Amino acid sequence: MPSERLLLALDYGGTKLTAAAATPDTAGREWRVRRSIPSPPGADARYDQFTMLALADEVLAGDRPAAVGVSFGGPVNAAASLVLLSHHVRGWENTPLRAQLQSRFGAPCFMDNDANAAALGEWRFGAGQVEARPVASLLYVTVSTGVGGGWILDGRIHGGAEGMAGEIGHTMVDPAGPLCICGRRGCVESIASGPNLARRARERLMAEPEAGRVLRELVSGNLEAVTAERVARAAEAGDELAEAVLTEAARALGHGLGTAITLMNPQRVILGGGVTKAGERWWRAVRSAARANVLPGMTVDIVPAALGDDAPLWGAVALAMTGN
Amino acid sequence: MPSERLLLALDYGGTKLTAAAATPDTAGREWRVRRSIPSPPGADARYDQFTMLALADEVLAGDRPAAVGVSFGGPVNAAASLVLLSHHVRGWENTPLRAQLQSRFGAPCFMDNDANAAALGEWRFGAGQVEARPVASLLYVTVSTGVGGGWILDGRIHGGAEGMAGEIGHTMVDPAGPLCICGRRGCVESIASGPNLARRARERLMAEPEAGRVLRELVSGNLEAVTAERVARAAEAGDELAEAVLTEAARALGHGLGTAITLMNPQRVILGGGVTKAGERWWRAVRSAARANVLPGMTVDIVPAALGDDAPLWGAVALAMTGN
Repeated sequence: MPSERLLLALDYGGTKLTAAAATPDTAGREWRVRRSIPSPPGADARYDQFTMLALADEVLAGDRPAAVGVSFGGPVNAAASLVLLSHHVRGWENTPLRAQLQSRFGAPCFMDNDANAAALGEWRFGAGQVEARPVASLLYVTVSTGVGGGWILDGRIHGGAEGMAGEIGHTMVDPAGPLCICGRRGCVESIASGPNLARRARERLMAEPEAGRVLRELVSGNLEAVTAERVARAAEAGDELAEAVLTEAARALGHGLGTAITLMNPQRVILGGGVTKAGERWWRAVRSAARANVLPGMTVDIVPAALGDDAPLWGAVALAMTGN
Repeated sequence: MPSERLLLALDYGGTKLTAAAATPDTAGREWRVRRSIPSPPGADARYDQFTMLALADEVLAGDRPAAVGVSFGGPVNAAASLVLLSHHVRGWENTPLRAQLQSRFGAPCFMDNDANAAALGEWRFGAGQVEARPVASLLYVTVSTGVGGGWILDGRIHGGAEGMAGEIGHTMVDPAGPLCICGRRGCVESIASGPNLARRARERLMAEPEAGRVLRELVSGNLEAVTAERVARAAEAGDELAEAVLTEAARALGHGLGTAITLMNPQRVILGGGVTKAGERWWRAVRSAARANVLPGMTVDIVPAALGDDAPLWGAVALAMTGN
């Protein structure tokens, strides 16, 4: 007999596997149990799945879940229930993960990619709640190694025709901007992601040997050690070069958000990911660039994510609860 | 007794008022009766409403409708059922049009702005149908005096927080582009709308006295007579200046559509409005610019509208049928 109240949430991250169990009454606040394990660099799909099932068994401790929710770090076909591929781990191509998990756990299973799952998690349990009620529409954006996003419209994930909606990282903000990993120029991600922010700081430090004193000191002169986090710290300490690079990155993101708001007029935008910890200067620049790029009268409500790294996992719980 | 099968559709256009009656079995194909009258330049809201009610009475011929659907040429608050203002006719500010019409006709009334209504009309009765089934998600864009749009997602209009979703005309494609009516630079509308396309041709004709021979002949040397339609005709006849301006306009629109596709991954994009009659050259440039501005694997399906000027009116019928 499955426990009617036990929900199993699985997060297949790029570098980490997490399984957790929750119950509806404490969902969004407290895990019944939660186990995480790093995915080693050489891991393939078979290894990941073996490890994940062991984690899940440990988390379930002999109980049967009422439903299973899955966040997957790569494109999935939510309708056909296939994992299309993983960006980090080989061997996931066209895996019928949903059917595998349903048969393994004897419970219905629902899955989506990590950005959509995180969007749903924040909507249901996190920053998508206003006075204990969920907003009608939101865009969730993670600003981290990449810049990706997910839409919740009318209480449901909007994935689009190929489940690829939300790719705000690859909207263009500057036709003369840097080359992006996608092959085009001046995408939001090419300026605003953590690694690209660091790269741009590095390039400026090399081009301007007199500038960026604080940032240089922070990395003891080793430009390879420049990270987005250190750029943010240097900017906070008054380093003008760091400040300029940080503001450019924030403005590129804000511009992209403004475009998304102009097109979809969401009630709220939620930002998560490591780069969002860059401080008030970064947030001010994001919000002001977004405001400058929308029509008068449109809501521009841009707030930090509330669930941190657990957003996709809570999203998996929400998927399990609603079959969204 | 209201006729269960009679639907009243009202289109408050900027320059024209239209009332029509339809029945569900022939909706999308045939009007039972349809009456249109131009709105004179000096008209105010009171005049328009008086005229519209007279048209509606004529169309109903004594029958009572089962429901009323309204397309309004200006922002409406669909939730609170208010017309916020008309872009063309004074006196419409904060009019409770829905309540007025419900009380006048003794039937439920549903309304939205013209872009959303047209999107719904095309989705339900026009180019949104694929093998007699509606697509799951679409963006409808009208390219005319302005460039505006509407989203149908999951079979419903997505209006957003202020009902302003779909403003693709005011997404930026060129930070160094022309000044837009919205105060910013390089919006899609500032390059791609009919009047702006004509203006840009005029500017090039003035700047390059030797160029644009065919276009000059078409307007007998009177640059004020340059219109988007004439630019398209000159381009068709091999006029290089006209061709360049037309292609620029098409590429600006295509770029904006690519951004919208990147963000929302709709199954289909439908283009209506006068400028879409500019010929195959224009359509090719729109599609190729859109394709160049999306991620690999995303559907780029851009097709002409099927309902012509009646799209908002058929959308009003769809509103009346579904209460969407």
